[in-house]
Amino acid sequence: MRAHDHRDLLFQLWEVAGLESRLAGTDLDRAAVEGILDTADRIAAEHFLPHGRLVDEAEPRFEGGRAVLPDVVKAAVDAHAGAGFIAAGFDPAHGGMGLPETVHMAASFIFAAANVSLSGYAMLTVGAGRLIQSFGSAEQKRRYLEPMAAGRVFGTMCLSEPQAGSSLSDITTRAEPMADGRYAIRGRKMWISGGDHELSENIVHMVLAKIPGGPPGVKGISLFIVPKLREDGARNDVTLAGLNHKMGYRGTTNCALNFGEAGGSIGELLGEAHKGLSYMFQMMNEARIGVGTGATALGQAGYQASLAYARERPQGRAPGAKDPAAPQVPIIDHADVRRLLLAQKAAVEPALALALHCASLVDRQRQGDAPAGVLLDLLTPIAKSWPSEFCLEANKHAIQVLGGAGYTRDYPVERYYRDNRLNPIHEGTHGIQGLDLLGRKVLIDGGAGVRALMAAIRADIDAAGVTPLAAPLEATLVRLERVTAHLAAQVAKDPERGLANATLYLDFFGHLVMGWMWLRSCAAATRVAARDGDSDFLRGKHQAARYFMTRELSRTEGWAEILMQNDPSAFEMDTRWF
Amino acid sequence: MRAHDHRDLLFQLWEVAGLESRLAGTDLDRAAVEGILDTADRIAAEHFLPHGRLVDEAEPRFEGGRAVLPDVVKAAVDAHAGAGFIAAGFDPAHGGMGLPETVHMAASFIFAAANVSLSGYAMLTVGAGRLIQSFGSAEQKRRYLEPMAAGRVFGTMCLSEPQAGSSLSDITTRAEPMADGRYAIRGRKMWISGGDHELSENIVHMVLAKIPGGPPGVKGISLFIVPKLREDGARNDVTLAGLNHKMGYRGTTNCALNFGEAGGSIGELLGEAHKGLSYMFQMMNEARIGVGTGATALGQAGYQASLAYARERPQGRAPGAKDPAAPQVPIIDHADVRRLLLAQKAAVEPALALALHCASLVDRQRQGDAPAGVLLDLLTPIAKSWPSEFCLEANKHAIQVLGGAGYTRDYPVERYYRDNRLNPIHEGTHGIQGLDLLGRKVLIDGGAGVRALMAAIRADIDAAGVTPLAAPLEATLVRLERVTAHLAAQVAKDPERGLANATLYLDFFGHLVMGWMWLRSCAAATRVAARDGDSDFLRGKHQAARYFMTRELSRTEGWAEILMQNDPSAFEMDTRWF
Repeated sequence: MRAHDHRDLLFQLWEVAGLESRLAGTDLDRAAVEGILDTADRIAAEHFLPHGRLVDEAEPRFEGGRAVLPDVVKAAVDAHAGAGFIAAGFDPAHGGMGLPETVHMAASFIFAAANVSLSGYAMLTVGAGRLIQSFGSAEQKRRYLEPMAAGRVFGTMCLSEPQAGSSLSDITTRAEPMADGRYAIRGRKMWISGGDHELSENIVHMVLAKIPGGPPGVKGISLFIVPKLREDGARNDVTLAGLNHKMGYRGTTNCALNFGEAGGSIGELLGEAHKGLSYMFQMMNEARIGVGTGATALGQAGYQASLAYARERPQGRAPGAKDPAAPQVPIIDHADVRRLLLAQKAAVEPALALALHCASLVDRQRQGDAPAGVLLDLLTPIAKSWPSEFCLEANKHAIQVLGGAGYTRDYPVERYYRDNRLNPIHEGTHGIQGLDLLGRKVLIDGGAGVRALMAAIRADIDAAGVTPLAAPLEATLVRLERVTAHLAAQVAKDPERGLANATLYLDFFGHLVMGWMWLRSCAAATRVAARDGDSDFLRGKHQAARYFMTRELSRTEGWAEILMQNDPSAFEMDTRWF
Repeated sequence: MRAHDHRDLLFQLWEVAGLESRLAGTDLDRAAVEGILDTADRIAAEHFLPHGRLVDEAEPRFEGGRAVLPDVVKAAVDAHAGAGFIAAGFDPAHGGMGLPETVHMAASFIFAAANVSLSGYAMLTVGAGRLIQSFGSAEQKRRYLEPMAAGRVFGTMCLSEPQAGSSLSDITTRAEPMADGRYAIRGRKMWISGGDHELSENIVHMVLAKIPGGPPGVKGISLFIVPKLREDGARNDVTLAGLNHKMGYRGTTNCALNFGEAGGSIGELLGEAHKGLSYMFQMMNEARIGVGTGATALGQAGYQASLAYARERPQGRAPGAKDPAAPQVPIIDHADVRRLLLAQKAAVEPALALALHCASLVDRQRQGDAPAGVLLDLLTPIAKSWPSEFCLEANKHAIQVLGGAGYTRDYPVERYYRDNRLNPIHEGTHGIQGLDLLGRKVLIDGGAGVRALMAAIRADIDAAGVTPLAAPLEATLVRLERVTAHLAAQVAKDPERGLANATLYLDFFGHLVMGWMWLRSCAAATRVAARDGDSDFLRGKHQAARYFMTRELSRTEGWAEILMQNDPSAFEMDTRWF
């Protein structure tokens, strides 16, 4: 039993992302990678997929200051870590497996599709551990990183506070220097995923706090390692103040944490003082891509579930069929059901292609390819936001395919929809991704990143030759360039006005990128058909791309018009007029 | 405390729907109507609104063959019925109040906004009772209708069966004639809202079943009155087989019912044999408008909740604001938050206008205005589907305004989103509404209904003179006429092919109708400003209309292109290619 399409994942890895060419110089070959993914597939099927309903219905309980989860959660994270899937995210120098990020991402996708909220602990642990890997001292790596890579200790990111959700410049958590060079941490953190549980021996919190006397705002933020338990096993005065009761995503605890209420929370500075936010961006960026991958995995799980249902459920007959005694047809025979399925496929598959493309940019960046890093930075808000919006929409369609059944908890699709609704919110809301893209990423180095990306897309369009997608994609690209130049000039003149429609710009940019992913997928399908012969699977790629082009890419025409006039309707709405 | 905007409701009733002109000849005046709505407002605030979270968390339990609900539900439905809000839906001849449907609808909207799933029992009772009012014998009216109008007995509609959800021609429930003229009913019904509970003295099920020997398919369907309890109080062999565990809408029980498993379920034929489906369409059409009104009410509840939050929650500063020591601003000051609020307002208010417009068509039809009935039939799929889709989208935005808080059950917006997800499914899915519109309503009498509606819209455009909305609305109308002619010709030639994009046609049609409602609302705002002076409220109407025009009405251009080519991508998708 699977929640993802393994055949598509392999096609995307080998044929679209071209992973094989990047295995040269590693000790991996195709068979080894597929073996790793088979292991992920097996553990996901055994420990993740069967517990979706249970971890949703038995949400974490706050008991005696502890967060209590069903036992199956511990068994699942142990099986996952035990098979090396946390180590897979780290350097061999620190107990990691040194796996290409592309392979790590593919495995993460399998687990997220099987049970997204159980896969959250590993994502946070890898992100937190990599902060120590990048910025920690040798001693910190020994003490914290190695047990994290071994899966014995989990990590978190502690940014938000009750009065400062998205506005990190307003955090008030303090870090007072102590005589021994460590810091006394005091403050309240909010929305901490994995903030408490008893799944691991210890929890290492990566905490943003301000050292008194530092610069105001974000320039005065430093980053601290604050473990739940000290080295001697004693509590470090990090207390669970409460659990958030969420609409979905319930296998991951979400906590309010108090640091140092009794004056005894001790932290260690990571790297240099006052550079905490810039360090934390490494984890935030990884988490953003992780969120997008999770959203994609949920989209795919819903697509697979609704596809299976549509093939089996008989209901009704073709419009115009007159004989009520004829047997009912499976609902996939109805055009509108195929539309609901195709819309899901058209959203989920390019979103996975982008996640793997981002992972391959990480791999190239690690090998010293600086331009890959520029593209990765630019694509990160897209990789986070597009699946969060459009694979959520896909989950809405999955429910619709099942009808009333889809609205009940007897089927997983309503849960996927609830789980996925988190993704446009956490790790920077959809709106904040828009500000990041148009207010920052697009402007850096005079637009060098956008130019590089457009050149990459153009190169793929040229290589594809005459295909149904090439011309509309080229037209979309030209439209985006025009809109970008227009809005960038406005942002320079008047940021508030210029950024008023940044969210729509984000969606527009995302549609172009997804169109590009479809172009690459179709080019791969054409190559494979020429090599191995055509197949239903390959034909489906072309047809879904056609759907995306007709129904989605076409929307960018209207969006461009709205953006070229920088629609003032919301900007000029006086707050008293509501 | 209110979940709806009372000021807007009154504006819509008096200024947009022009209710006052239709009170002539009734014993109601403006003050009396407002008194009725004040009563609804008071009861909703006391008995409906406070229990939203409770009825969600304490979902109906199946205990000893009974459906058990929290006590507050009984108190709420009693207060509602006791104040005459069920009687409000019936003729005075049968214990009703003979209220104009427009006033009844406005009151229903208040209750639905306060707690949609508690308002469901009355909607079903009015719909079921009106079937008896229309088609029942004098004896049936005395025995069933009068206690329903008094709110002592509730009603249901029993159409679907496990093997026949949307496909009524496939129902297998049998009605065997008995010697005394009554019928022995035997079969299983599924998805029965309000199918069991202990809120009323009795439950009257309106059951579709087939009399053996009748014609096959829908032509052999008859309609039966099947009470839960017989006149002597004994059980009528209608057993609760189980409750559906839903994502939301939990205050309304949703049941699987078995009729006559012990051979003892007795029903009475309503009207003539084999005409059951045509009778039931009366209730289905009322329920469809009711579903749309409920979706709109949920949209408005989310809008009001997120608006209140956005005015109070401080977070961040304007883009470009450099001083981190300056106080944070309320989030409504951020352009993208205003966009999320304006998108809700732009969807919810015209949807309410359409619901009230449909109610006024009911009133006109009752007064013998046959063309009003034609318009009502045509608008019913729009009134059902558009709010179900776009006020659900509004609820998504409401969550987004609240961010992480909106994803928790501490705030009502995630519940509204879950509740509203039912609406594109029940009473005919979104896809089925599309088939109804393009495959039936548009074609009737050679398109007379569409011509009449377009003439009505054109008359309002002409009356509005030069306004920002008039020209784009006229252009949309022309586009719709072109698309309609094109698709109607295809449907005539090849129904399956012609109807392949009926759902998109439905959304397109809905956008035109909502643009029309905005035109009427703006015309009213202009009139009121000339009469009473301008105000923030009236300015908000114009601004939201501008937003709708720029961001929503503009979408119909791309949709028209897709429909003019009758996009074959889903139609031609081979089921093996998925």
